[in-house]
Amino acid sequence: MKSRLICLFVAILFGSTIGANSTVNADEGMYPISMIADLNLNEHGLEIAPDDVYNPDKVSLIDGICRVNGCTGSFVSPKGLIITNHHCAYRAIQSASTTDNDYLKDGFFSQSMDQEIQAKGYVVRITESYSDVSDKVLDAATEGMSFLERSKAIEKRRKEIEKQAEIDNPGTRAEVAEMFTGKTYVLFLYTFIKDVRLVFAPPSSVGAFGGDVDNWEWPRHTGDFSFMRAYVGPDGKSADYSPDNIPYTPKKFIPVSPAGANEGDFVFLLGYPGRTARHKTASFLKFEQNVRLPFVVDLYQWQISTMQAAGKGNRDVALKHSSREKSLANVEKRSRGQLKGLIRKSIVETRSEQERKLQSFIDSDPTRKEKFGSLLTDIESVYAEMTEKAPYEMTMANLPNACRAMNFAFTIYDAAKEREKEDLDRESAFMDRNFDRTKSRLLLSVNDWHAGTDKIMLKGIIERLNAVNASIAIPPAKDLDEAFSETKLGDADAVAKYLEMSPAELAKLDDYFMKVVVELYPEFMRFREQNKARDGKLGQLYGDLIDVKQQLLETNFVPDANATLRMTFGHVKGYSPEDAVYKSPATTLRGVIEKTTGVEPFVTPDKVSELYKQGEFGNYVHPKLDQVPVALLYDTDTTGGNSGSPIIDAKGQLVGVNFDRAFEATINDFAWNKSYSRSIGVDVRYVLWITDNVYGAKHLIEEMGIQK
Amino acid sequence: MKSRLICLFVAILFGSTIGANSTVNADEGMYPISMIADLNLNEHGLEIAPDDVYNPDKVSLIDGICRVNGCTGSFVSPKGLIITNHHCAYRAIQSASTTDNDYLKDGFFSQSMDQEIQAKGYVVRITESYSDVSDKVLDAATEGMSFLERSKAIEKRRKEIEKQAEIDNPGTRAEVAEMFTGKTYVLFLYTFIKDVRLVFAPPSSVGAFGGDVDNWEWPRHTGDFSFMRAYVGPDGKSADYSPDNIPYTPKKFIPVSPAGANEGDFVFLLGYPGRTARHKTASFLKFEQNVRLPFVVDLYQWQISTMQAAGKGNRDVALKHSSREKSLANVEKRSRGQLKGLIRKSIVETRSEQERKLQSFIDSDPTRKEKFGSLLTDIESVYAEMTEKAPYEMTMANLPNACRAMNFAFTIYDAAKEREKEDLDRESAFMDRNFDRTKSRLLLSVNDWHAGTDKIMLKGIIERLNAVNASIAIPPAKDLDEAFSETKLGDADAVAKYLEMSPAELAKLDDYFMKVVVELYPEFMRFREQNKARDGKLGQLYGDLIDVKQQLLETNFVPDANATLRMTFGHVKGYSPEDAVYKSPATTLRGVIEKTTGVEPFVTPDKVSELYKQGEFGNYVHPKLDQVPVALLYDTDTTGGNSGSPIIDAKGQLVGVNFDRAFEATINDFAWNKSYSRSIGVDVRYVLWITDNVYGAKHLIEEMGIQK
Repeated sequence: MKSRLICLFVAILFGSTIGANSTVNADEGMYPISMIADLNLNEHGLEIAPDDVYNPDKVSLIDGICRVNGCTGSFVSPKGLIITNHHCAYRAIQSASTTDNDYLKDGFFSQSMDQEIQAKGYVVRITESYSDVSDKVLDAATEGMSFLERSKAIEKRRKEIEKQAEIDNPGTRAEVAEMFTGKTYVLFLYTFIKDVRLVFAPPSSVGAFGGDVDNWEWPRHTGDFSFMRAYVGPDGKSADYSPDNIPYTPKKFIPVSPAGANEGDFVFLLGYPGRTARHKTASFLKFEQNVRLPFVVDLYQWQISTMQAAGKGNRDVALKHSSREKSLANVEKRSRGQLKGLIRKSIVETRSEQERKLQSFIDSDPTRKEKFGSLLTDIESVYAEMTEKAPYEMTMANLPNACRAMNFAFTIYDAAKEREKEDLDRESAFMDRNFDRTKSRLLLSVNDWHAGTDKIMLKGIIERLNAVNASIAIPPAKDLDEAFSETKLGDADAVAKYLEMSPAELAKLDDYFMKVVVELYPEFMRFREQNKARDGKLGQLYGDLIDVKQQLLETNFVPDANATLRMTFGHVKGYSPEDAVYKSPATTLRGVIEKTTGVEPFVTPDKVSELYKQGEFGNYVHPKLDQVPVALLYDTDTTGGNSGSPIIDAKGQLVGVNFDRAFEATINDFAWNKSYSRSIGVDVRYVLWITDNVYGAKHLIEEMGIQK
Repeated sequence: MKSRLICLFVAILFGSTIGANSTVNADEGMYPISMIADLNLNEHGLEIAPDDVYNPDKVSLIDGICRVNGCTGSFVSPKGLIITNHHCAYRAIQSASTTDNDYLKDGFFSQSMDQEIQAKGYVVRITESYSDVSDKVLDAATEGMSFLERSKAIEKRRKEIEKQAEIDNPGTRAEVAEMFTGKTYVLFLYTFIKDVRLVFAPPSSVGAFGGDVDNWEWPRHTGDFSFMRAYVGPDGKSADYSPDNIPYTPKKFIPVSPAGANEGDFVFLLGYPGRTARHKTASFLKFEQNVRLPFVVDLYQWQISTMQAAGKGNRDVALKHSSREKSLANVEKRSRGQLKGLIRKSIVETRSEQERKLQSFIDSDPTRKEKFGSLLTDIESVYAEMTEKAPYEMTMANLPNACRAMNFAFTIYDAAKEREKEDLDRESAFMDRNFDRTKSRLLLSVNDWHAGTDKIMLKGIIERLNAVNASIAIPPAKDLDEAFSETKLGDADAVAKYLEMSPAELAKLDDYFMKVVVELYPEFMRFREQNKARDGKLGQLYGDLIDVKQQLLETNFVPDANATLRMTFGHVKGYSPEDAVYKSPATTLRGVIEKTTGVEPFVTPDKVSELYKQGEFGNYVHPKLDQVPVALLYDTDTTGGNSGSPIIDAKGQLVGVNFDRAFEATINDFAWNKSYSRSIGVDVRYVLWITDNVYGAKHLIEEMGIQK
């Protein structure tokens, strides 16, 4: 790994207060890898040298970490074997499954490399280097620009930098990430692997045990892991899927320790956390609490129950819905947890209090007051406007989301419109460098389309639009049943052809959904511009906010998560979620058996129950609990995107795979708290017991070099 | 208290094994008071003499215990002051409440005795003596009787004994209780107090904090207590309500200890547990698990949501529904807990295994085999028949239950029909000695009638009958809206008049509901006879079952709960409800504040929040938790009817009031388990803090003799 980090970035992010004075909080913080050297990790419990974790000049642990679509994975063998979550591989397992060959239900177990199957739609990326490009990006915004112009200028400059970086570094993927809103930008370069295969997935009864009931809950008994493998061309370079491809050789793989980790042990995670909002204002949190989260909960609950009803007694339909249903259920429950946390923990009140102090500080100095006096109210006004327009805007924005046919039509038409523009002026998804992936994702979705469900969704969303007195009416179909039976939008071949057409040609299609999209397109474009204008305004204001907060607190901040590589550390640790309750940090196989009812989602494979009864725990017994440990709890700082992150012990060995947070920790995205922010991972001993003792995949145990 | 217990009863119930050999289980057991002397209570932690708890020849603690309708209460002052649960006084608080004077919402606080208000429909009874009457009862059943005849003969004999006992002991109430099904019968005599008044009830935001969400759950933060008072005539004898009545002087009152009880402390409860089924067969449990409990959950969920919808935004309607809704919700959630427990704890399997052993024992001896060989299959056949007919029978039986107007009409018509018979031949509710209470209960229900809700209920139950292809159709109304608007069954005066009419007069009434009831009456009578026949058969079979089980186990049993006075003991103790979770046995005021969201059922009175913030905990601080303790957990053996039971410490002082069980302990009714059977009570320190510091009822604190 080669670092191109420039000094300015270091200064802004972690000046003298972090490191030298060791004021770093032990457990909070999703630290950019550039900060690792300054965290005094050995004092916290790390036994290897911090530069074995990350060193820009040599191979280190971070070279064994990859991004697997929106998740994280670890290389665990020299042959490109990746361990990640079952739920991260879910889309691949689902799309390879049929009612006859149901890998979701029965699991997938390749006996050798030639049985590994393509994980359609999956890519793996590995962080290679990064450099601060803040000046270059912000240069694009000039005085006198409107917020919309500012937003567009910055967006275009980021694309230019990315495009140029990919030309300068052939075969890599470039991304300019915003570290502090409106303030700091870093260019990341990634190795980009396009041939990813499924190696081993336990059945859902292990990998998703407890399902949506247990999701976001501790205690947990889910074996949420899968093995995948990265392949490259015979020349060792990234290549599209081909039978001739060979396993990728990572620079580094993470050694797997069958000893696991126990209560009190130091652990750290590396991964790609997606998005947090710790630097946002109380007005933003209020918008979340009062407007957006309740909307999402209500809308998704309805969509989920609709899909469930449609899939009842029809495994074929259930399979089509499974991935989308799971993903909506995940967000719905997280949103409920966040709502509960925002209210119970008085998060808005706490942040408002901080802002009252900040406002006093601003007002105490005339120059500061001049520059920042209206900052907080200016930010508030944006959320006030969003709040006011929310019922219509949020419902309308969900039309081509709830109704999949509408979504397909919109994506196709949007692509045609955008691709008429210069490459750099297009929405990112439709730029040449991204369009192949956009297409393949769309076609995967099309395969999961189910007209019956979609009709209910369309009717429901139209009802909701009527209920909010939408000023724009959805053009009615002559006959809705006909519209659904005649559309070709559920046919991947037809959709592939549509993707070749011009906007004018699409507008002429005899397809109800396309007609609706063409008619509503100007309104959606108005939304798009309006959002960019809001982003432009908020970007500038939040940049100022960081400035003045830094003046007040005389400290530096860790940037919010933004899907770039981060490190977080802590300890295996229980917690008290409420008065009179204590939850300890390890669950066991006995708990799996106790939860098993034989009714979904609490079904357990017979083999697991048998081995439990026989006490066949192999080499994977918890020293104190005298059981196979199943899941681990620890107080590191994680969010979505950390799914699949390795849990690494003080010696730098993989001891588990992160997959979730406790219900109270859904609020992590807004505020981290030592007393209840806990993350959940599957214990490596359960991973190995399932792989080895239950499903007999000895070749994987050997490949990982596990001593028996 | 005078005991007339005869020797036979002692021998059967607790022969040599209990007591002498101290094989008594420390915590399981709802012991009849006759067993108290043999429990070696001092070895378990009791510090006073067991005969201070119960001694047939002198005044003891049990004289301070009373039954308050279906609950238990304790006398806590020499002036008849009773402490029981808020939910036990709920019906009295509700019926005194109006939207203007909402005691449920705001609480009820009398400042002196003359402000105490009548608790309509409430009676208090105090156990005075008991005697075994098994021979007398069983004598009524002679060889060659059919099961129906046997059932009726025993029923009639019990009534004869009760009636005679009340003649022999004027002013008392007599009840013959079945201790072991078909085997042992005990006559209890009770002092019977008919003037009961409401003294102090906290607002529901304290007394029912957490509502149905927290019901059957630990940790709990409910101040579920109320004070009532027993009144008698100026002559000291039981009398109907009159302003001239005076407070009742109990033989004994339970001293209240403001020190409370803490983790590990020995505690015992006295009370009137309602019904358990620990001596029933696996076939009975299967019927519960597969048939009755799922039916109840489904039916009640629908009724509850219907009532909730009707009461939304209309406090008047909500008040009418509140008591019934609360009571259905209570049973619904308990049933869910029982279902979960039956499945997760494999209760049926365990009992089947015991029965396989019993069957081997039976089969191992020709004489035993001759007598008991088909016993278990004979019992099973009764439940098989009930299972087969359940969809129709259970739905039909719920017609005059779900639909209140139908219930009123049925009760009125049934009363008229029954009261044409000789007193002893009537259903118990319509015997002269019971009819006044039956009437007053009916009239209270009539006051809570709401036509709109009832119409939905009737339609729903008819739909359900159609769904199970009922052979009998409910006669349709010409116009259902008219039927509901024209009926007088919601008018207490009209109903009082109907109660004076003959069956023939009722049949001529122009009332839809009465017409339906008259037409369906023969079918309901068929149900009644059929149930008596089943009871007769089961009674005989279960009597045999106890016999042969006693031969096998060479031990004696504690009879199932049957609403007679029992004692249970144990310790204040936490538990682990599941893998990786531990719940400690005391909750605190801090927990109340943490749970408070301001949204029902998690609202807290401002005064409580204020005193919490100010740390004004008075003399009621938990020594370790440094907080006002709110609720207590302990491993005694309780069931419904133990609500309001005093929690008594080793010194014989009241330290709390029992009000619930943990969710896992709903299964207590079928099987008790040391590891998770836990009961829940309100800590006396919370009772006193609320009474004293929050609502300033110093006169009650003084009356109870609390030292400040």
